[in-house]
Amino acid sequence: MTADTGLLVGIIMGSDSDLATMRPASEVLDRFEVSHEVRVISAHRTPERMAEYGRLAVERGLKVIIAGAGGSAHLPGMTASETRLPVLAVAVENGSDPLNSALGSMIRMPRGIPLATMGKGESAAANAGLEAVRILALIDRNLAAAYDEYVASLAAEVESKDALLREVGVAAYLARSAGP
Amino acid sequence: MTADTGLLVGIIMGSDSDLATMRPASEVLDRFEVSHEVRVISAHRTPERMAEYGRLAVERGLKVIIAGAGGSAHLPGMTASETRLPVLAVAVENGSDPLNSALGSMIRMPRGIPLATMGKGESAAANAGLEAVRILALIDRNLAAAYDEYVASLAAEVESKDALLREVGVAAYLARSAGP
Amino acid sequence: MTADTGLLVGIIMGSDSDLATMRPASEVLDRFEVSHEVRVISAHRTPERMAEYGRLAVERGLKVIIAGAGGSAHLPGMTASETRLPVLAVAVENGSDPLNSALGSMIRMPRGIPLATMGKGESAAANAGLEAVRILALIDRNLAAAYDEYVASLAAEVESKDALLREVGVAAYLARSAGP
Amino acid sequence: MTADTGLLVGIIMGSDSDLATMRPASEVLDRFEVSHEVRVISAHRTPERMAEYGRLAVERGLKVIIAGAGGSAHLPGMTASETRLPVLAVAVENGSDPLNSALGSMIRMPRGIPLATMGKGESAAANAGLEAVRILALIDRNLAAAYDEYVASLAAEVESKDALLREVGVAAYLARSAGP
Amino acid sequence: MTADTGLLVGIIMGSDSDLATMRPASEVLDRFEVSHEVRVISAHRTPERMAEYGRLAVERGLKVIIAGAGGSAHLPGMTASETRLPVLAVAVENGSDPLNSALGSMIRMPRGIPLATMGKGESAAANAGLEAVRILALIDRNLAAAYDEYVASLAAEVESKDALLREVGVAAYLARSAGP
Amino acid sequence: MTADTGLLVGIIMGSDSDLATMRPASEVLDRFEVSHEVRVISAHRTPERMAEYGRLAVERGLKVIIAGAGGSAHLPGMTASETRLPVLAVAVENGSDPLNSALGSMIRMPRGIPLATMGKGESAAANAGLEAVRILALIDRNLAAAYDEYVASLAAEVESKDALLREVGVAAYLARSAGP
Amino acid sequence: MTADTGLLVGIIMGSDSDLATMRPASEVLDRFEVSHEVRVISAHRTPERMAEYGRLAVERGLKVIIAGAGGSAHLPGMTASETRLPVLAVAVENGSDPLNSALGSMIRMPRGIPLATMGKGESAAANAGLEAVRILALIDRNLAAAYDEYVASLAAEVESKDALLREVGVAAYLARSAGP
Amino acid sequence: MTADTGLLVGIIMGSDSDLATMRPASEVLDRFEVSHEVRVISAHRTPERMAEYGRLAVERGLKVIIAGAGGSAHLPGMTASETRLPVLAVAVENGSDPLNSALGSMIRMPRGIPLATMGKGESAAANAGLEAVRILALIDRNLAAAYDEYVASLAAEVESKDALLREVGVAAYLARSAGP
Repeated sequence: MTADTGLLVGIIMGSDSDLATMRPASEVLDRFEVSHEVRVISAHRTPERMAEYGRLAVERGLKVIIAGAGGSAHLPGMTASETRLPVLAVAVENGSDPLNSALGSMIRMPRGIPLATMGKGESAAANAGLEAVRILALIDRNLAAAYDEYVASLAAEVESKDALLREVGVAAYLARSAGP
Repeated sequence: MTADTGLLVGIIMGSDSDLATMRPASEVLDRFEVSHEVRVISAHRTPERMAEYGRLAVERGLKVIIAGAGGSAHLPGMTASETRLPVLAVAVENGSDPLNSALGSMIRMPRGIPLATMGKGESAAANAGLEAVRILALIDRNLAAAYDEYVASLAAEVESKDALLREVGVAAYLARSAGP
Repeated sequence: MTADTGLLVGIIMGSDSDLATMRPASEVLDRFEVSHEVRVISAHRTPERMAEYGRLAVERGLKVIIAGAGGSAHLPGMTASETRLPVLAVAVENGSDPLNSALGSMIRMPRGIPLATMGKGESAAANAGLEAVRILALIDRNLAAAYDEYVASLAAEVESKDALLREVGVAAYLARSAGP
Repeated sequence: MTADTGLLVGIIMGSDSDLATMRPASEVLDRFEVSHEVRVISAHRTPERMAEYGRLAVERGLKVIIAGAGGSAHLPGMTASETRLPVLAVAVENGSDPLNSALGSMIRMPRGIPLATMGKGESAAANAGLEAVRILALIDRNLAAAYDEYVASLAAEVESKDALLREVGVAAYLARSAGP
Repeated sequence: MTADTGLLVGIIMGSDSDLATMRPASEVLDRFEVSHEVRVISAHRTPERMAEYGRLAVERGLKVIIAGAGGSAHLPGMTASETRLPVLAVAVENGSDPLNSALGSMIRMPRGIPLATMGKGESAAANAGLEAVRILALIDRNLAAAYDEYVASLAAEVESKDALLREVGVAAYLARSAGP
Repeated sequence: MTADTGLLVGIIMGSDSDLATMRPASEVLDRFEVSHEVRVISAHRTPERMAEYGRLAVERGLKVIIAGAGGSAHLPGMTASETRLPVLAVAVENGSDPLNSALGSMIRMPRGIPLATMGKGESAAANAGLEAVRILALIDRNLAAAYDEYVASLAAEVESKDALLREVGVAAYLARSAGP
Repeated sequence: MTADTGLLVGIIMGSDSDLATMRPASEVLDRFEVSHEVRVISAHRTPERMAEYGRLAVERGLKVIIAGAGGSAHLPGMTASETRLPVLAVAVENGSDPLNSALGSMIRMPRGIPLATMGKGESAAANAGLEAVRILALIDRNLAAAYDEYVASLAAEVESKDALLREVGVAAYLARSAGP
Repeated sequence: MTADTGLLVGIIMGSDSDLATMRPASEVLDRFEVSHEVRVISAHRTPERMAEYGRLAVERGLKVIIAGAGGSAHLPGMTASETRLPVLAVAVENGSDPLNSALGSMIRMPRGIPLATMGKGESAAANAGLEAVRILALIDRNLAAAYDEYVASLAAEVESKDALLREVGVAAYLARSAGP
């Protein structure tokens, strides 16, 4: 497991029940053609594997780790303790957890062990993928150019919606969204 | 470090800045003459030592672990992942943390890894010591008897305060408390 | 009601509407073959019975009490006031209670009356059962061995999911979970 | 302790450390010349005394109970379980408890056991005294008249402050308040 | 509107959308045969009517006012400003309001204007009805006796559920609750 | 885009997914016959367009801007930085955001850049429309008269509901609401 | 009190203890030479005066009302119920109120009664003054020009601080701020 | 301002009152000899400068931006909208803001605009500096080696404290910390 794998990003999560939430991170990396792996590694149920994953990450060639977790959410912070790679944390949404404990556990890391929290839920997973691209774009011109195109497409999408809304008005626009 | 140490309780915390908060746990154990050790072990800064501490705890003869932590508070939960001993968690008070993230991180452990949260601050540290005594009293009759005496002393203290208040009245009672 | 019952754990709750949430505690104890009883006892509607239950618990041979409650959640703390056995508290989930008042009521016990909060909901109930096993394993070698096997099975389950995910990929894995 | 005492209101609290907060309840009752007692009775440390206090309250002639508590705040709710008198709850302020757990424990009583929460801190204690007067005024015309005078005095105080502010202006008014 | 109406309790609410939540207050009063009225009066949309309702309440013979409100929840507190009768506040549940603003608005009344908060939702509405009965029982022996019977019925119901659970076990009990 | 447009109010939002929530603002302005536009402009995806919209608003003849946003909710505050027109902010409801971050981002603007927060959800959008009318009524007598009529209609609606409730009683009223 | 007063803005608050917090609203209006009055009017202690103040506001010539309140914070919302003028609400800071109940009470007004919340504390009071200026600038060209100058001065102040920081560096800049 | 500056990291903040909190970010970068600038740029008071700073960041040679902000905290997110560089957000602590609005505004960025939140206060500022080093270490071997040494020093510090505590005991250790 320790030779360079050619993989640039590792997406890990504590449970396969987190996979649907974390999927957009993988999809964003696919869109930008960034090689990556997706793994289930539990801080609580497989602590040795988690520690090993973190310690070998540099050697395996990874540049960024994206870690998703819910509840007590120890996986991102503990992984950041085992590697010097930037670790991007994603809180897995949990309808019954109104105080966002997973986020709370991520954004209060002690001085000395940085962890970059991207938010919670599928949007945050997508943004974690995008943040990984921003970091990798520092060392890959093509990725930088692709990212700039992506940003332009976001603006164009908003502008075309604005144009449509001005053209058809509020009621017709909402009727269209509700669809047939 | 692996022989039986004769120690029954291990009190661990992530930073020496937690020591003042955790002190009452040690004082309670002293009062009940329960042998114990007090250690600084960081989940984030010394992850290998933390893992080792948990894995060797049974072998070393410990029966209960009390773990104090603030902020992201990974120490208690990660220790519970490394041992089958009961782990009692104490959140270290943090004036600037109104959402009690440390508590939140403790009380949302995933199914399969139990962690017993005792509360936050010095009172919770004292109660962690008392909970350790309750557990040890299951296997030590003398400790059970000592605990029953302790409970009686709590009641007596309340009753004597009530008697004094009824005797002297509110104003005089408060004046005494403010005292010279 | 006062002779030794041979029961090791008492699971109590304030209302039969808590029973579905507390069931996993009983199931865990069944799995480890720990004798126990499950009772409906209300701190508010049957205060005398609650007090009696706590006061007789030692005499009846119980070693651990698991107490579930929602809302104001007085049952666990009041029971801890009536016995010297370790009491493990479980907050019953309540969708309309975003501030988790039941948890708040449990984790702020006064100095002198320890209460071990295991979290909220079915996962916490299961963990309360597991914590009871951890405590009982201090006095029962067979239980200790059974617990170690359980921990190994948790790790094996995560590892097999990780292997499957690496083999089939994200999309196929999620399609399977959604299943026919 | 069971004969009619001539006392109309019982003010109880779990600890003498709550006394300074609860004092205004007693002062308000003094102002309206309502006979009352002030007691330290702990739900956790003296559960039998608490139960007895509640059960004998009607027989002793009490009409209203004011109960102050902090932290887990079981005293008001448990007292309401032991008596049919109206129980007015006051949360004792606790600077380190930002989620107001005491309030949360009070306002989520189960259906069947009503508890009237007056708020937290000294203002709430004063208001608990005033609420007791409102209730007693239902059966005492003189008290009703005295209460109406009190309300008029509140309005007069606001009006005289408004008049002074209009006369002297903001800066002078604030300078006076800071005053020597 | 000002002659004595023979009504003892007024149940008011700011909107007819609060009526389903407040209904149990009326049902409890029906059960105890306490005469009462149920009204829609808005602090914000009909401020004059609200003020008049409060000012005339004593004259109309009312003894207790139960006021339900959601959102900004000004109705209970403003009514308490217009009358010297005890006012019992009920927060109307609002799924999209996780910080319970209605409760917050009720439990922070200024010193001088007491308001008794009973909690939120249908259970709190029922408890407001019961609290009104507790207050009226101070002046009505029959009501006091009826209340004592009600308390006994609550205990009997819990005890019969406990007996059934012990007889049939957890699984069978839950199967029954799920029903045919 | 810079000539006077004859439009008095601009309703902007960061995403077309906010449109259903913001619609009542437009409907209120339609009811009062206030000319306005509805636009999708994103602070994050089209920052230049947002800045330009704010800078040209006075020149285009707008008097009030209503800005809706969810999540990080930068649109209202950033727009207030680009114009001297009053900006009314509406938080778009988000079921998975219990801490109301959008509101939090709106009500903590730095000294010097005022932003008027109207609340969250469809009711707040309607109220933003009404607040715009209140402001415009300062310079339009007809609008002032129309607003006074609207207030009277609110009161009349409450009074007719109250009359119906008194006539038919609680059960029948609720049965009607549930409808056929 | 009903003739036109020549005053454009009314600043009201429920208690003179709010005056220090509200002072910046008055100071901002002084800076822009906007005539205004500052009044103590309590929704709870002087409900009739509050209602009258709101009802007469238009007739007295006021254009905007700024209302400050803490705790239950009924003053701003109730005033908005009594007038059609725009009402700007300021929550008075309260160190012991971590859930910001005053804000919560302001931002959840029912549909039909708009209230513009400016935030809490002295900064919000200043911003309420500035928002009043923005509204008045719609009908006063000179005020509009003065406001534009004010905005330019804010930018200039930031730019000069940035220039100084770049010139002297972090350490020297902080040393200056600490100053002698 | 647009030529390559040789600077690798830009530390920006909305107000010079944030400087003391943000200082540790600069100190960490100094320790690792990473060239950087520290700037005061306000999203609200100097929106054009903020937009320009973001748009020119790549051209100026920056690799990472660290943005600190309190209150509404628009600076980090708006900057992330203007550049494709990774932006690390630091919430400036604010004692009177218990709901951590600045954090809330940072961790809820919309899909498409990633922002990496490091936490709040001085520790988070230090961690932002360390995260920048982790990112730069991807392209600078010496920095990677220096970082590994830093991690080892963190562990060594904890271990020496643990050794001292075991040697001298709790009381003596705390007495030393309190110091002369």
